[in-house]
Amino acid sequence: MIDLPGIQELCQQTPSKILFLVVDGLGGLPHSETGKSELEVAYLPNLDRLAQQSACGLTTPVLPGITPGSGPGHLALFGYDPLKHQVGRGVLEALGIGVEVRPGDVAARGNFCTVDSEGVLVDRRAGRISTTESAPLCRRLDALRVPGLGIHVHPVRDHRFVLTLRGEGLAEEVSETDPQRVGVPPLEAQALTPRAERTARALREFVAQAREVLSREERANMVLLRGFSQIPVLPSMGEVYRLNPAAIAAYPMYRGLAHLVGMQVLATGATFQDELSTLRHHYQAHDFLFLHYKPADAAGEDGDFPAKVQALEELDRFIPQLEELAPDVLVVAGDHSTPGVMASHSWHPVPLLVNSRWTRGEGVPRFTERACASGSLGRIPATNVMLLALAQAGKLAKFGP
Amino acid sequence: MIDLPGIQELCQQTPSKILFLVVDGLGGLPHSETGKSELEVAYLPNLDRLAQQSACGLTTPVLPGITPGSGPGHLALFGYDPLKHQVGRGVLEALGIGVEVRPGDVAARGNFCTVDSEGVLVDRRAGRISTTESAPLCRRLDALRVPGLGIHVHPVRDHRFVLTLRGEGLAEEVSETDPQRVGVPPLEAQALTPRAERTARALREFVAQAREVLSREERANMVLLRGFSQIPVLPSMGEVYRLNPAAIAAYPMYRGLAHLVGMQVLATGATFQDELSTLRHHYQAHDFLFLHYKPADAAGEDGDFPAKVQALEELDRFIPQLEELAPDVLVVAGDHSTPGVMASHSWHPVPLLVNSRWTRGEGVPRFTERACASGSLGRIPATNVMLLALAQAGKLAKFGP
Repeated sequence: MIDLPGIQELCQQTPSKILFLVVDGLGGLPHSETGKSELEVAYLPNLDRLAQQSACGLTTPVLPGITPGSGPGHLALFGYDPLKHQVGRGVLEALGIGVEVRPGDVAARGNFCTVDSEGVLVDRRAGRISTTESAPLCRRLDALRVPGLGIHVHPVRDHRFVLTLRGEGLAEEVSETDPQRVGVPPLEAQALTPRAERTARALREFVAQAREVLSREERANMVLLRGFSQIPVLPSMGEVYRLNPAAIAAYPMYRGLAHLVGMQVLATGATFQDELSTLRHHYQAHDFLFLHYKPADAAGEDGDFPAKVQALEELDRFIPQLEELAPDVLVVAGDHSTPGVMASHSWHPVPLLVNSRWTRGEGVPRFTERACASGSLGRIPATNVMLLALAQAGKLAKFGP
Repeated sequence: MIDLPGIQELCQQTPSKILFLVVDGLGGLPHSETGKSELEVAYLPNLDRLAQQSACGLTTPVLPGITPGSGPGHLALFGYDPLKHQVGRGVLEALGIGVEVRPGDVAARGNFCTVDSEGVLVDRRAGRISTTESAPLCRRLDALRVPGLGIHVHPVRDHRFVLTLRGEGLAEEVSETDPQRVGVPPLEAQALTPRAERTARALREFVAQAREVLSREERANMVLLRGFSQIPVLPSMGEVYRLNPAAIAAYPMYRGLAHLVGMQVLATGATFQDELSTLRHHYQAHDFLFLHYKPADAAGEDGDFPAKVQALEELDRFIPQLEELAPDVLVVAGDHSTPGVMASHSWHPVPLLVNSRWTRGEGVPRFTERACASGSLGRIPATNVMLLALAQAGKLAKFGP
């Protein structure tokens, strides 16, 4: 949690409301033809006006130069040091497809692969078979049984699936079975600590049965497992900040992350308009509402600069609907940058605005990377954003006499 | 102390002088009618000219969003991490009225209260009796005796007083007697650690005697005690920075804080003009002079925007007197913001200027919150200000080979 001893004692429950909009992949980079970033090219009358009335700055998601995944990016914004609180790959993959992971469960990323008659790996991805082909195979694996454990296999996409184990005495410290190269057999799952022996045995048993069941398949005749992980025990946002927080996110992974930090995850539809309906419906019941906007990141990941511009412009048109609710504090932040020109997440600092009655504008003319660099907030760790939001909502008492 | 291992080895004694002006509550917020902050409205020809010739920036007193009290705000400016070095409420209250607190003493905030015939609390503040009424009662409590200890009761204002205990083997880990609500009896002081047993017993004995002595009073017939604290052992500024530091402050609390960090506290009068006379008189004898200006904070706390503007303009007229002394480094900093529109301390970043022969201006046109945001220092933790002052005074050697 926030690196501030006694933060819990400073937090005070008040009726004020914080609306916390996370624009996934918000930050970008200039296009070589125009010298302008997505935010600079986009027509964003509402976000620009908000920036003019807000405290602005740039957030560093983890550390300068570190490109965060969605997990660390969001945990930091919620005030959790992403270096201290790490969510494993198996768990994150499970959350991403909406699979429930309970404390104690072990989740793993799996994929189908191809081995030859000697058991030597010839294709680590089984020719990237389609979901149509892999889904029935997942169902066959899902039917396997290891005594005393609940074992489930959930299709992800193409050759990928998620494996979850549920039962007493499981542990995540197990070595991966993917040798990361062909020409050798898959590795055996080995316990890396004594307490993980049972889990390793169960995984070896599962792999042996899987190989048997898949033996007649031409391509997907074996499985590889990695990223064994259990959900971390995270302090609850509700308890630490004395909030009644809710999450509104269409995508399962963000719902899962919000659940991990103790937010109430509200049922919602597939679009941002659906999210806004949910927001309006539940607005009175919560004092902190996390709202997630995905399309900017998706377009950035696709390397589609114009699509990212368009996604930002679409978001901008929704902003008045947020303002109509008149939250005491409105935060617009991003979990990381996803520049269209890079077609991936990046380490670049992310624009931030915090709007409340205690921010009356500071000369930042637009909500862009360059303009926010001159804001009064300066460049701050993303883990500080919650402190600013709480402060502006009047939810933080004075520190020290 | 500054979070820099080996800082002491870097510091070198030189004849150069640092004049360190702390403008209490310096930062502000725009007024809704003008969109301008106190610093922006005020006519500050001298501070603006200085800013044009200086390295400027904004300081974060503790962390973004954290509103500091005067204790943490000043400790940070002197280079002490305010999260590591905390001054308790009792001690600070004692320092605030000029009561000497020695290492080992326990200080507490006290107030008179009203209990009914059953001993149940009916008014936690005894009807906020006036100082005229409470001062004689304080003298009666001051006369109480607990064997082996020096016990003193010092009036503060209205229903409030400070209690100090002096003697061997005292400890601050004692529970407060104020239940924070009426309808229940005051709590008994309880030791929270074994080493605090003696202190808790002495406090119970004091409270019992106080109750007896006050029993015929109509309103102030009982006392409540809280904020038990001892002075923290702080590294001495003189030793760590190799300075001969002096403090010039009219208000007792700042004198007390300066004493805690090992400054020589100079006798001075009640006004800033008095402080300046003291400064001139002792200027040759010290290489670091902390000068405290209070009126800006007082006006801000009162929610009096025009008075804060006026306090800043008055300060500005004194600036040439500081420049006449030709210090090698002149720092103008604030311990925190006190926006008139909030009528309280706040978390907002605070303007900073550091002036020396090594700073010749960097395009910051005015000494305001917005203008300083674009200064070369950026937004820095207040704990870094001392490093900048020492560096510009030529008092910091190169770090590393």
